[in-house]
Amino acid sequence: MQTHYADTNMTTSPSLHALSALPIVEPLEQTLRAGLQRIIDLKTKPPGSLGQLEALALQMGMIQRTTQPAIVRPAMIVFAGDHGIANAGVSPYPQAVTAQMVLNFLAGGAAINAFSRVAGLELEVVNAGVAYDFAPHEKLVDIPVGKGTRNFAQEPAMTRDEALAAMRAGAERVRHHAALGTNVIGFGEMGIANTSSAACLMSRLCGIAIDECVGRGTGLDDAGLAKKRNVLAAALAHHAAPDDPLDVLATFGGFEIAMMAGAYLAAAQARMTIVVDGFIASSALLVADAIAPAVRDYCVFAHASNEAGHRRMLDHFGAAPLLALDLRLGEGTGAALAMPLLRAAVAFINEMASFESAGVAQRDA
Amino acid sequence: MQTHYADTNMTTSPSLHALSALPIVEPLEQTLRAGLQRIIDLKTKPPGSLGQLEALALQMGMIQRTTQPAIVRPAMIVFAGDHGIANAGVSPYPQAVTAQMVLNFLAGGAAINAFSRVAGLELEVVNAGVAYDFAPHEKLVDIPVGKGTRNFAQEPAMTRDEALAAMRAGAERVRHHAALGTNVIGFGEMGIANTSSAACLMSRLCGIAIDECVGRGTGLDDAGLAKKRNVLAAALAHHAAPDDPLDVLATFGGFEIAMMAGAYLAAAQARMTIVVDGFIASSALLVADAIAPAVRDYCVFAHASNEAGHRRMLDHFGAAPLLALDLRLGEGTGAALAMPLLRAAVAFINEMASFESAGVAQRDA
Repeated sequence: MQTHYADTNMTTSPSLHALSALPIVEPLEQTLRAGLQRIIDLKTKPPGSLGQLEALALQMGMIQRTTQPAIVRPAMIVFAGDHGIANAGVSPYPQAVTAQMVLNFLAGGAAINAFSRVAGLELEVVNAGVAYDFAPHEKLVDIPVGKGTRNFAQEPAMTRDEALAAMRAGAERVRHHAALGTNVIGFGEMGIANTSSAACLMSRLCGIAIDECVGRGTGLDDAGLAKKRNVLAAALAHHAAPDDPLDVLATFGGFEIAMMAGAYLAAAQARMTIVVDGFIASSALLVADAIAPAVRDYCVFAHASNEAGHRRMLDHFGAAPLLALDLRLGEGTGAALAMPLLRAAVAFINEMASFESAGVAQRDA
Repeated sequence: MQTHYADTNMTTSPSLHALSALPIVEPLEQTLRAGLQRIIDLKTKPPGSLGQLEALALQMGMIQRTTQPAIVRPAMIVFAGDHGIANAGVSPYPQAVTAQMVLNFLAGGAAINAFSRVAGLELEVVNAGVAYDFAPHEKLVDIPVGKGTRNFAQEPAMTRDEALAAMRAGAERVRHHAALGTNVIGFGEMGIANTSSAACLMSRLCGIAIDECVGRGTGLDDAGLAKKRNVLAAALAHHAAPDDPLDVLATFGGFEIAMMAGAYLAAAQARMTIVVDGFIASSALLVADAIAPAVRDYCVFAHASNEAGHRRMLDHFGAAPLLALDLRLGEGTGAALAMPLLRAAVAFINEMASFESAGVAQRDA
């Protein structure tokens, strides 16, 4: 049996106070920064020579409030949901692929399964709202908010209450892992047509023209890309610019994107290091960031994807992504691939000798 | 006791036939390419969506002549050597740091130690020619060709026989690992002033003006950089353009660079996948490539380093580096950091389901 989260657990609070039900995120204190930087600079290497890994070690130390950051039970949560906009012909794949890929995740045959094994990640699969009835499966967290969103070319994808319920459900999944000790987490997604949701979220939340936000997704040709642009431009014109991020999320988002947005907030509240995947994952972060900008302090940007618009989104966050492998798959694959770099950052700050301890001369003064 | 390789094991063959003593490298056959590409394309993902990892899986399959490539006993060899050009004031660090860092490698306190542990690499440290007498150490392969090269601002860094002896010694170290089953290998280096050697090798072998090859190394300031450029421009002018890569290596190279050049050839001959580190490691590859261009077929380029000139060198090889983390440390650190991406490539081609086996629909035809 499915539990429709929105039907059973939802707080039907008036919208004015809706956001107060979400996790509170506090910015990082700066007190440890200088001490961490000094430790990093005294390692047996020219100062700065480990590049982005030095910034990563510093950030993880500040998040964990320690000069000896560690990675404990790293996890990956993949949220899946269907999108009414798929009916508008914005993806070359049929909507049924979302459910088929969820079954593939559960069977262990998808890219995120292989990469989670390589990276040593606990992998959780969440049905956030797929248009399918899943048989019970021990590996499936089956908490759909609905059976796919509505087609936002015609009406809002979700109600505000559905969006909020999804955010809270996503936050709850993170708290589950926090209770098991997880202090590093990544989020992935699956949802046919969800690059369309992400592009509209980006356009509305960043104030960027839709044509610069739309890409080929899983592989549209030129004609398909032109059609997608037209559909999304019309959808944006159809919906008046809403006045808060929850409205934007409800209008253009997806259940998986909303759960992920809530998950970001809870992960930051739990002082986890958050590894941000690609275009869709970054669009969910735009929502979380609009609600609580301090969430950025906890984020590591895994990669620059090959989806048009992702670079622009990274610029919005002032992000320096770790990888640029021309990935455009989603599922959290980029985040999983970046995880060994976090392990390397933690390893060098904990394990490397200092100039003094190793008896190595520093540069000529 | 040290063994001076050049004194004891050297073949004093006339130079005309010197190169015939080096490993023979054959280009990859193309027979498996189409079959591997088809397997990759039928995995449950949009075609091409794993970007550079798809090319990596394809290359490793072709190198290993199988549709199921594997990583066996991956290894990292760090070659250390001193450079007479250090006396010309081209580095802000004293020459003694080379030996001190070798001792740091042996004690496990350097970045390459930490990253080799994270990546699961067998780490070997080779004294290729440091200006220091090392006490016997179980982890040190102590086979110096000399106690540092001569100052190439005044005379050739090595004789041709020394260069050849070093190349053959490097090749021999690779054969040692091949016999233990290693099929993926990276090479690192340590040698104060070796960016000066690398820059001159690049200038002469690629025909690029020295100013475009010279960078700040481990951290020169503007005045130091200007001095380094002048010293190296004068050194290049001092030595007539030699007519073969062994002469160029002997004139401007280092013992660690020469060993690495020989190691590349032996690794390709042994059909290993070779993970190429940064600026110095790429300069050694320039030498190997000038002798046997097929060596490139076996090379994966780990990263674009922050050392000026490295991007240009990567362009020379037509390389698409996996990482760009602003590293400028050497030691093989970039190669070690890229190793998990090779594991991911092997994992996806072996472990992912196909559309058919997973019952996932392909895109609309």
